[in-house]
Amino acid sequence: MTNDTTAFTLLGTGEMGLALALALLTAGHSTTVWNRTAHRAEALRADGAQVAGDPGAAITASPVVITCLYDHASVHQVLDPVVDRLRGRTVINVTTTTPDESRELAAWAAERGITYLDGGIMAVPEMIGGPGSLILYSGAAEAFEQLEQVLSLWGRSRYLGADAGLAPLYDLAILTPMYTAFAGFLHGAAMVASAGVPATELAELAGPFLTAVVEPSVRHSAEVVDGGDFAVPGQQSLSFSDLTKFITASEAAGVDPVLINGVQLLIKRQIDAGFGDHGFARIFESLRRS
Amino acid sequence: MTNDTTAFTLLGTGEMGLALALALLTAGHSTTVWNRTAHRAEALRADGAQVAGDPGAAITASPVVITCLYDHASVHQVLDPVVDRLRGRTVINVTTTTPDESRELAAWAAERGITYLDGGIMAVPEMIGGPGSLILYSGAAEAFEQLEQVLSLWGRSRYLGADAGLAPLYDLAILTPMYTAFAGFLHGAAMVASAGVPATELAELAGPFLTAVVEPSVRHSAEVVDGGDFAVPGQQSLSFSDLTKFITASEAAGVDPVLINGVQLLIKRQIDAGFGDHGFARIFESLRRS
Repeated sequence: MTNDTTAFTLLGTGEMGLALALALLTAGHSTTVWNRTAHRAEALRADGAQVAGDPGAAITASPVVITCLYDHASVHQVLDPVVDRLRGRTVINVTTTTPDESRELAAWAAERGITYLDGGIMAVPEMIGGPGSLILYSGAAEAFEQLEQVLSLWGRSRYLGADAGLAPLYDLAILTPMYTAFAGFLHGAAMVASAGVPATELAELAGPFLTAVVEPSVRHSAEVVDGGDFAVPGQQSLSFSDLTKFITASEAAGVDPVLINGVQLLIKRQIDAGFGDHGFARIFESLRRS
Repeated sequence: MTNDTTAFTLLGTGEMGLALALALLTAGHSTTVWNRTAHRAEALRADGAQVAGDPGAAITASPVVITCLYDHASVHQVLDPVVDRLRGRTVINVTTTTPDESRELAAWAAERGITYLDGGIMAVPEMIGGPGSLILYSGAAEAFEQLEQVLSLWGRSRYLGADAGLAPLYDLAILTPMYTAFAGFLHGAAMVASAGVPATELAELAGPFLTAVVEPSVRHSAEVVDGGDFAVPGQQSLSFSDLTKFITASEAAGVDPVLINGVQLLIKRQIDAGFGDHGFARIFESLRRS
């Protein structure tokens, strides 16, 4: 199979599946789609898609089958009844799963003569195909190499290794600070709301500030973690990062401090263990269970 | 007093106080410094500073006194014994405090004929005077207006209102997502460490991703909060944002899920209340205590 002529089947045309299918169709790839709720797949007919009536027919149409479903259980629900048709084909699973779920799927596929590549999409649907889209892959290296040119239609691709669990591991590891940052901002919005300040006014100041500080700090703390010396000079000390003020001010503003309590717990563990003069990256050690 | 000729006194020459003093000295302002640990203040003599032997002498030297101390208690410890000398002067307090602590200081100052301006520094010391430095002020409007030109030596200035608590309120509200993002990244680093992946490798992917997504998402969620309709179309639903996968994967990787548990609690409260089809910004309502 070559990149130019590969036909694709896409199972699951939610918002993300739709964006993936459109990128393939726009580039001229023969694309067959199936969706549990048929009208969502039917809508792609106008864009040139073949619409299959069931997963088995959809799979038979192409050597490469992309699964973009709700969760790990959905992948088995859709593929198990038609698993015989998958033998000799490649499955690219971009459904969000845990690392162990992806490893289970990879082992399941290997036992049945199916090539398995796991994909973790670091983008929202409207970013697909644009410069900000990044998709992480792990599992079958040869499938990634053969399909890399086509996969680049969705965004930048990065192959992480043969362990199928790596893409979801990185995926969840990267999305964690995204969710904690989003939640942290809403915490801040609730704080200023107590003084009648609109959230957009806070965003106007917090947005550029976070853009300026997060990436450099993330890179710096990663260097500290990898270097293994959490006491390197020039860092703000953990003792100074004590978040008691944040908790007190949140309570006073009628805001549940649960998010700050979590960070404070990680800080306190290290201060109590005698590392108050180390830098913030030291909480890495609070996070790892012995 | 005009901006050109104002003399300043700075009490507290830790890393931040040092940076503030150097910016004033470089611009040619007569600057008197005092620090509890004298040698830290003495080091500024070479840069042209007057070094005072005690807070009282330092205060007498200038109409404007900047306090850059450890915490709220330190401000009272340093100023209370010499409060008579402060009458008729302006105190700019950039010590990190809670909103209520700043309000207490403002009331204390008002009763004693002292003009009080509170400052929240959104920068690390090395950013002072650079383009990324932002300093929030609240309290005496006339002091801010008179000194605005000098204050701009430290970075962009933003006056938030007469309530002295506003600067620390915004300060803590903006720093909350910073700390939760930093902690979230270290959580991710601990996850990938379980597979032998260095934190710097994660940072290389997570850094640009966070830079791309955080500010637009923060602005979007602020618009949703202010609009008051958490069900506006085109958002990822709260049900889809359920973080159970993150918790499972963290546990499997030997990582304490305390940070994710906090976000998940806020999500679950809204799902349980029947708002699973609303967007993520809905957790604003979980954070506010009724």
